[in-house]
This record gives sequence, C-alpha cells and structure tokens, in this order.
Amino acid sequence: MSAMDAVPQTIEDLVAVIPAGGVGSRLWPLSTPDRPKFLLDLRDTGSSMLQDTVERLAPLTSAMLVVTGQRYADAVRAQLPSLPSSQLLAELSPRNSMAAIGLAAAVIEQRRGTAVIGSFAADHVIGEPEAFRDAVRAAVEVARVGKVVTIGIEPTEPSTAYGYIRQGEPLADHEGAYDAAAFTEKPEADTAARMIAQGDHVWNAGMFVSRTDVLLGHLARLQPTLHAGLREIAAAWDTDERDAVVERVWSTLTSIAIDHAIAEPVAAEGGMAVVPASFDWHDVGDFASLASLLTPNADGVVTVRRSAPVTTVDAARAMVVGGSVPVAIVGLDDVVVVHTEEALLVLGRDAAQQVTRASGTLPG
Amino acid sequence: MSAMDAVPQTIEDLVAVIPAGGVGSRLWPLSTPDRPKFLLDLRDTGSSMLQDTVERLAPLTSAMLVVTGQRYADAVRAQLPSLPSSQLLAELSPRNSMAAIGLAAAVIEQRRGTAVIGSFAADHVIGEPEAFRDAVRAAVEVARVGKVVTIGIEPTEPSTAYGYIRQGEPLADHEGAYDAAAFTEKPEADTAARMIAQGDHVWNAGMFVSRTDVLLGHLARLQPTLHAGLREIAAAWDTDERDAVVERVWSTLTSIAIDHAIAEPVAAEGGMAVVPASFDWHDVGDFASLASLLTPNADGVVTVRRSAPVTTVDAARAMVVGGSVPVAIVGLDDVVVVHTEEALLVLGRDAAQQVTRASGTLPG
Repeated sequence: MSAMDAVPQTIEDLVAVIPAGGVGSRLWPLSTPDRPKFLLDLRDTGSSMLQDTVERLAPLTSAMLVVTGQRYADAVRAQLPSLPSSQLLAELSPRNSMAAIGLAAAVIEQRRGTAVIGSFAADHVIGEPEAFRDAVRAAVEVARVGKVVTIGIEPTEPSTAYGYIRQGEPLADHEGAYDAAAFTEKPEADTAARMIAQGDHVWNAGMFVSRTDVLLGHLARLQPTLHAGLREIAAAWDTDERDAVVERVWSTLTSIAIDHAIAEPVAAEGGMAVVPASFDWHDVGDFASLASLLTPNADGVVTVRRSAPVTTVDAARAMVVGGSVPVAIVGLDDVVVVHTEEALLVLGRDAAQQVTRASGTLPG
Repeated sequence: MSAMDAVPQTIEDLVAVIPAGGVGSRLWPLSTPDRPKFLLDLRDTGSSMLQDTVERLAPLTSAMLVVTGQRYADAVRAQLPSLPSSQLLAELSPRNSMAAIGLAAAVIEQRRGTAVIGSFAADHVIGEPEAFRDAVRAAVEVARVGKVVTIGIEPTEPSTAYGYIRQGEPLADHEGAYDAAAFTEKPEADTAARMIAQGDHVWNAGMFVSRTDVLLGHLARLQPTLHAGLREIAAAWDTDERDAVVERVWSTLTSIAIDHAIAEPVAAEGGMAVVPASFDWHDVGDFASLASLLTPNADGVVTVRRSAPVTTVDAARAMVVGGSVPVAIVGLDDVVVVHTEEALLVLGRDAAQQVTRASGTLPG
C-alpha cells in the first residue's frame, strides 16, 4: 500500500446526516429520556455512540448534519465540540425519522443545492468501519443515478429484532447492488427463519443514501403536506424567521418513519436499491444485545463501567453494568444487573425486550 | 382475667443465658462479621433480634447473662443500655456453644451458688412469646429434679435446616415432658420425611434448661479439661485476675457444641428431657426463611428496610432488602435483592443456603 492510498478518499458531493433521537428505553436505566442511548458510552470504550458515528463517517466527508431534539442540543455540542453550529439541527420535538431526514435534505438543498445524503443512526455499533465506508461509497454511486439506496446487512441469524429487505435483481451497471424488492418489518420467528433459508434477505440497518432531489421528489409525491412543511422550515432555517416558522409549522408535520414514507412505497415502484454488506453491525437495542458484544472475564462475567468485584456462585453468564459496590450473584443464570445512581435493574437476559415496561414506572 | 393474673410470674431461681455469637453468613451482606445477625433488626420491627430476645425473657427473670465476643461487646452494650455490666460476659474469641454456656453456668455458681439456667439463642424469632415462656416454665420444673431439658418445636414441615430430637417415654411426674431419646443433626430430605411421618420427633431449637450443678457435673465427667478451664476462669472472673487467667486458659478450651458435649451423650444415658411446644419459631437462617416471615405487598413483593419503589415485570415473589434507589426486577421469579452500602447481592431464592459461598469473597 502506498502512502497515497492511505489518504482517506472523501466524497465531494456527500453529506452525512446523523439522526440522533431514540432514547433506547430497553437500555433503561443506563439510558433515560435525559440520557439517551446515542449519548452513552455503552461499551465502555471512552467514546459515545454518537462520537463513534461521527468518527466513522469523518473519512468520507466533513459535511455532516446531526439532527437531534432541542433538549439534547447542549449535550451533543459538548460531545462534538468541533461540529460547527450550523451542522446541528435541533428539532422542536420528535416527529419521527422522515421529518428528521427530510429536514436535513431540505436544509442541504437550500444551502448548497442538490447533493447526495447518507443517513446513519447515531446509536449503532459497527465493528469494521472501513468495510462500512466501502459500502457507503458503493451506495453513493447507485444514488447518483437516481435510486434511493439502502445498505443491507447480511444476516448471521434469523433475528426477530430487525426488519428485513428482500434483494431483487442485480442492477445492470452497479456490481454488488440490487433492486430492493420489498421491506419487511421485524418478523415473527418462523418468518425470520424462512427468510434466512431463502437466502435473499438482508437486515434493514436504517441506512439510506439518496440524492436530495430524488428523496424530496418522492416525498413531495407521497407525503406532500410533510414535504411542503419541511421546505417552508428549511427556507427559513438560516434566517431570523426560523423560530417563528418552526413554532408555527413543526407541530403540523406528519410523524412517520422513512421506511413507511419512502422505502416501502418506492420499493414497490422499483425505485429502491440495496447494497448488501457483511460488516459487523449491531443496533444494541437491549442488554442481551449489549452482552453479546462484550468479552466475558475469566469467570464468564461481562462487566461494563465498573471496577468493583463481581462474584458468582452457581450463576452462569452474568452481566453487571455500573455501580460502585461489590456485587454477588448466587443461583441465577443469565442475570443482568444494571446499577445507576437513579435505579437498579435486575433482569433475566431472555426478558431483555421487556425492560421498556419497567422504564416508565420508575425515575431514572 | 384478674389484675393479679396479669402480673408476670418471674422464676426466682432462673438465670437466662443468651449466647450471642453467630454471624449469620447466609444473610450476607445484611449480616457481616462486623454486623452479626443478632444485632440486626431483620424484620424491620424497630428492635434487633438480641433486643427481642431480652424482651421475651424479661417477664421470666431479670437475671440474665449475655455471652458475646469481645468485638461485639460495645454494640451489645449500646443495644442493651440497662443491662448491668456484670451481666455481659465478653469472650476473648469464639470457642463454640459449650464454652459460652459452660462459662455462664460456672460464673453463676461462683456468684450465687446453684441456680437453674435457661440458654436461648439471641437470633431466633418467636411469634408467641407467652407460649414460649410457658414452655420455659415447664422446662424449669423438670430441670429442678436433675434433668437437662430442651424445648423442642413441633415441626410443621420436614425441614432439612434444623436438627431433630426423638421423644421417648413421658416423664412420670411432669405432664407434657418426655425423655429425650436421641438428638439428630440436620437430616437429609428422606430422613426428615421419615421422622415427620413417625410423629415422634421435634425440632432442636437449641434451647437448654438445666441446674448449673447438673450441667457442670455432666461437663466434669464428659469434658473434664473444658470443665476445669471454665471453673478456673469463673473463679477469676469477678477479680483482678480475670484478664490474666483468660489470657492463659481461654485458648486451651475445647471448641465443641453443647449438642455434642452434653445433649447427645446425656440423652444416651437417659439424662435428657424434652418439653415439646408448638409456638411459632424461626431461626431465620437465610433469606428464603426471612422472606417466609414477611407479608408481601399488593404486587406480591416483600420489602425490608426500604421506602423507594420496587417494580416487577414478569417477576413473581420478589424480595428486596435495603437500598435507597428504585429497583426494577424483570423476567425473573423468586429473586432476592439485598442492597447495602458495602455490597449488592442478587440471589435466586432456592439458592439461599449458598450465600455463604459469596459472603467470604467480597467486602461487606
């Protein structure tokens, strides 16, 4: 490899959009409405998921927009001190992913005309960033010719925690890219098993790459009211009128996920493409998922953010997160203990998806 | 009931002996070597088990000796401020129950001549104190004629957590008292079931009532060295020589339980009697036992020493002890959570007896 090859190849016309919104309520009490998942250093690496996301995208482009809620704006600025203030879009209130990504697209068009945007969640873990960036580069190529492109993850198991994308025919001029034939929401176990057996489905990682004019064109056609509202806000965004327009228009915007607003209907029309990729990807949606990412110690115990000892007696596969006092787990397999200043969670790993039901009932 | 009947009937020649020694390591981290079980208010009643024991015995006699370790002497004094200092015997180091009770008997003989002593552990829960005192009164009657008497608890289940006493023939002149034919240590489950089926066994609650001369006579015959050492210490106890004699003799004393030193061999000789009783009695040896003593709240949760909320999701029969932050238990039945300033224990109730294995490995 020559020195020349080592220079990161940025993509001139790419703007990275980072929607940073989800609380991650299945990770309570680590995550709370005041301390959402994307601000957390879940894996104890020294950087938050948002910071990791920015770092992963930086070799592709310095043009980034972080879209977050006003309540998180200060925390995002603190974690990303070198992000210019114009690159932080603070939403008045959560209006789902279509409003967040659509606002970013409209503001970008307003500021610089047509560009390619790639939208990547702020709270995913990607183990092989260069493979991720290669997939983004491939997706950008396809997006330039007018497709809305998603990066799909080659599944490693019949997970019921993710949505799926069915790969159709290969695209003629883009090796490794396919027609995205259909989007499926999180399936039941038997459906997931069937899709894996068929071999033509990939996980929907929520990564969308598109020309702004293509995305906004679909939006104008499929969600005209939402499109009009976003255009109006974008026109005022860099002016003194921003607050007044946002105040008037924001709450009228349709709250809809980009999957429903764009991906599903456009796939049915033949306008979506998928670039399958096999890099290591996790959305770390719950503590079972987090446990699977971490390396157990010699006792088979996974610990995060703690230095005090953990002792187990007849207790396999324990996970202890946080807390400053010694912990003993006796006679219980697959236990997750999460200890913050505000709350203590004791969880059976198989019930990791049920944590949401506890998160709302207690402070923290 | 007349006013006269309500006056407690004290027993002139009875001295109550309260050995206060066991740490209660299965109740870690509530109990620790620095905070043994008998000093704890386990049931959140406002008084410790030691205080409850003294209060339960007070209507029988004001003559009491508390035998504890030197390391606990200050804490015992603090909990029992009205106990005269002469009634606290502080042991140099633990030498098992025979040394503790034998020392008390020898000191009593030295101070006042022959008396009847009744020895009752400082860390048991008794739900019907008047029925307990009736049993003690009956036992004292039998002890006066020269038997070593134990109070046996009518079993309510084939517990493997307690030793058993086999009742022999009724005593001729003492209704309700029986020859104690044999003492059995904690049995296996099938043995316990067989003893319960036979109907002639009671639980050994470690309550012994005897004339001092009878007890010390058996000891002189069966454990002559231990007896001689205790007599030597007792002779010096209330003199300036106490510390010097204790320093020289104490560590030479045989460490043996009263069950092995006296109860088993004397039962074989026909010298032990048992007074069966059916009052509510618990030794509260572990968290499963403690849980069974307490009343669940409307959610089926038992809490002790805490006011912060407990939320359960798919988690039956939870128990939470201590701790100031809210606790959520998700997807685990029969969990016990014990939270102190020094440690956090997460326990499957069925493994309650395994807690000892964790208690030594961690601080607290």
